[in-house]
Amino acid sequence: MTEILNGNCLVAQSGGPTSVINSSLAGVITEALNHECIEEIYGGLNGVQGILQEQLVDLASETQQNIRGLRYTPGAALGTCRYKLKSEADFERVLQVFEAHNIRFFFYAGGNDSQDTADKISKLAQKKGYALRVIGVPKTIDNDLVTTDHTPGYGSVIKHISTTIREVACDNSGMGQHDLVQVVEVMGRSAGWIAAGASLAKYKDDPNSAPHLIYLPEVPFSKEKYIEDVTRVLKKEKFCLVVVGEGLVDADGNYVSTDSTSADAFGHSQLGGAGEYLRSLAEENLSVKARSIKLGMAQRAAVNCASKADSDEAFMAGQAAVKAAVEGKTDQMVILVRGEGDTYACETALAPLSEIANGVKLLPESWINEDGVSMNYNFIKYALPLIQGEVEVPFENGMPQYIELKKIYADKQLPAYTLNS
Amino acid sequence: MTEILNGNCLVAQSGGPTSVINSSLAGVITEALNHECIEEIYGGLNGVQGILQEQLVDLASETQQNIRGLRYTPGAALGTCRYKLKSEADFERVLQVFEAHNIRFFFYAGGNDSQDTADKISKLAQKKGYALRVIGVPKTIDNDLVTTDHTPGYGSVIKHISTTIREVACDNSGMGQHDLVQVVEVMGRSAGWIAAGASLAKYKDDPNSAPHLIYLPEVPFSKEKYIEDVTRVLKKEKFCLVVVGEGLVDADGNYVSTDSTSADAFGHSQLGGAGEYLRSLAEENLSVKARSIKLGMAQRAAVNCASKADSDEAFMAGQAAVKAAVEGKTDQMVILVRGEGDTYACETALAPLSEIANGVKLLPESWINEDGVSMNYNFIKYALPLIQGEVEVPFENGMPQYIELKKIYADKQLPAYTLNS
Repeated sequence: MTEILNGNCLVAQSGGPTSVINSSLAGVITEALNHECIEEIYGGLNGVQGILQEQLVDLASETQQNIRGLRYTPGAALGTCRYKLKSEADFERVLQVFEAHNIRFFFYAGGNDSQDTADKISKLAQKKGYALRVIGVPKTIDNDLVTTDHTPGYGSVIKHISTTIREVACDNSGMGQHDLVQVVEVMGRSAGWIAAGASLAKYKDDPNSAPHLIYLPEVPFSKEKYIEDVTRVLKKEKFCLVVVGEGLVDADGNYVSTDSTSADAFGHSQLGGAGEYLRSLAEENLSVKARSIKLGMAQRAAVNCASKADSDEAFMAGQAAVKAAVEGKTDQMVILVRGEGDTYACETALAPLSEIANGVKLLPESWINEDGVSMNYNFIKYALPLIQGEVEVPFENGMPQYIELKKIYADKQLPAYTLNS
Repeated sequence: MTEILNGNCLVAQSGGPTSVINSSLAGVITEALNHECIEEIYGGLNGVQGILQEQLVDLASETQQNIRGLRYTPGAALGTCRYKLKSEADFERVLQVFEAHNIRFFFYAGGNDSQDTADKISKLAQKKGYALRVIGVPKTIDNDLVTTDHTPGYGSVIKHISTTIREVACDNSGMGQHDLVQVVEVMGRSAGWIAAGASLAKYKDDPNSAPHLIYLPEVPFSKEKYIEDVTRVLKKEKFCLVVVGEGLVDADGNYVSTDSTSADAFGHSQLGGAGEYLRSLAEENLSVKARSIKLGMAQRAAVNCASKADSDEAFMAGQAAVKAAVEGKTDQMVILVRGEGDTYACETALAPLSEIANGVKLLPESWINEDGVSMNYNFIKYALPLIQGEVEVPFENGMPQYIELKKIYADKQLPAYTLNS
């Protein structure tokens, strides 16, 4: 029998937002209200960073409209961070905050780094004999978490991208007689899941429809092959729609961009130049008109074109996290499991946090066609169920009405804490 | 009394597509069916270019679903061109084609160049004594046509941009504690109408909401002021959302971009670099994280976020063109006239094609705030009615279902014609 643990719960969000990360938050809050063992429902602002600073807000005092509004509001309503718990002092502080607020259930929505953090917090609590149940909620547009069939956030980003490509294809195909190369750059630093998702824009009965070419980080880029690929498409079509993942690399593993010498303040290569580079390559080598689109952060926030299936699964993942914790589980992340049948079905299960933290799920090579620039039926079969249905966003006076949480702070119990810079 | 003219009608589209140019086409077809004096309803493919080549399709044989589908299908369903009728031979040929197919009503959807073409065709027909009624249908996302209060296509592009900015603002404001500059580049070669429209994203009750800074082609760009502007915003806000029109120029009238030396194959300056330039300026001078989004052609095709008011007015403009021609009018373009009352109302009227052809409507200086980077109440009052309501796009299997015309060709009556290159 499960030992009953009574206390407060804390939910926080981490990493880059998705269109549906707030759906998971709504799932956690809604489910937490069902369980008597959970007393207060706190939200931690800005992920672990806010927890260190004891920035806890009372989510139970939010209005019902706001909780419902989370299901169509992009961004991370509680704020996220990229702060990494570094020192032992950081971890100790987290537990002190938990103890001060009698936090016994901790839910952390994020990618593999965040699940690693959750794992470490959980392990430390066990070591210290502090009763705590920690359950991760999967979140990332990158779809690169292991053990889960897919990750909440992914379906929506590829639905938005595919819709945009269909729209741009309508526009470009009506543009008349001049050859036009249209390059669309999408996110995806180390894996091509997002770029591959663009293939859903293709009409089933028209293999020549856009996107015509997809350049994935998994396939080393060759300038010569690119020019050949574009030339081949332009022989058949009036325009050539190219999708490229921002993390495209050449045979030596260097990022492909207009200015490969530029690096950001931390010495990382500045991504985001791949689209513009491919555009200029086409224009310079083929004397065609070439244009580029860079969706940037808009692609992960485009809830007006998000997937209902994705949003619902994100909500379900939040609910499942609470159920698991109440049932005595800890040190696990909720995963999504696809049914075996012909009709798509999705259930939740659990996998150890440590397993998530240390893995990266790659796009299967066998799902990429031999041409290296298109996806085969296996990918379509995998991805198509993830974009089903549309999220309804309420518009008022012509504009979408997103919600903002009231954020009523819980009283601080501890002295201030200085973050590592 | 109006002399009754019997014959066929021809409708064609020109220039860059908008989200609602096909609504105007639907308006023309729907209205043309109401008038007995109009026998066949032809569509000219690819604007005047297709007319020269006698590429006429029978629009009356399209299905009802297709005509309805035009109201939510982006791009130009008949195709457009940027071909300019150059020689006398070109104009003569147009009339020959008209005569061969007994075209007595000609409707041309486009911007000022296209209306100029329509005007010249009309004048030549009069000179030759060929009975022809020519009515222009306004179309351009740029909103720069004179005499009309606004132009179909404009409301939808600014609704999409404003929605995207609200979404990105949700995302970025949740991104935690690091200063972030987000630059969104929008279209607008010579006027700031589109960039100005982004101001609709601002929440009425929150003057500090995004977009924080708007850089218009009308206001000469100064690097020093930009850095000051961004610094000022970042003192108050966690992030600074910058909107920039692609046609941004410095005090000397040169386009602002990362690589001002680059020019396209025709020697025109290559636009599209303003956003990336502003991003890098912020990153280099303020040591903040800076990202950019370039919506490119996606902004004028985003019918899934188009304005119903705009789409309906585009349809109405198409209808009005046919009514006017049947009533004996010619050499005019349909214009939109705003009612005087407090509640927005929009009617159609007519203005001479020659007037449209030679004018450019500028963004009133008095609608720009003194800071040069935001719009005042007069602009909001003007633009807000144009984005009301949402166009419903049917989705099937997770993706929007746009239509494609069957395009059943009318038999050619004339020998082939060689286009000027």
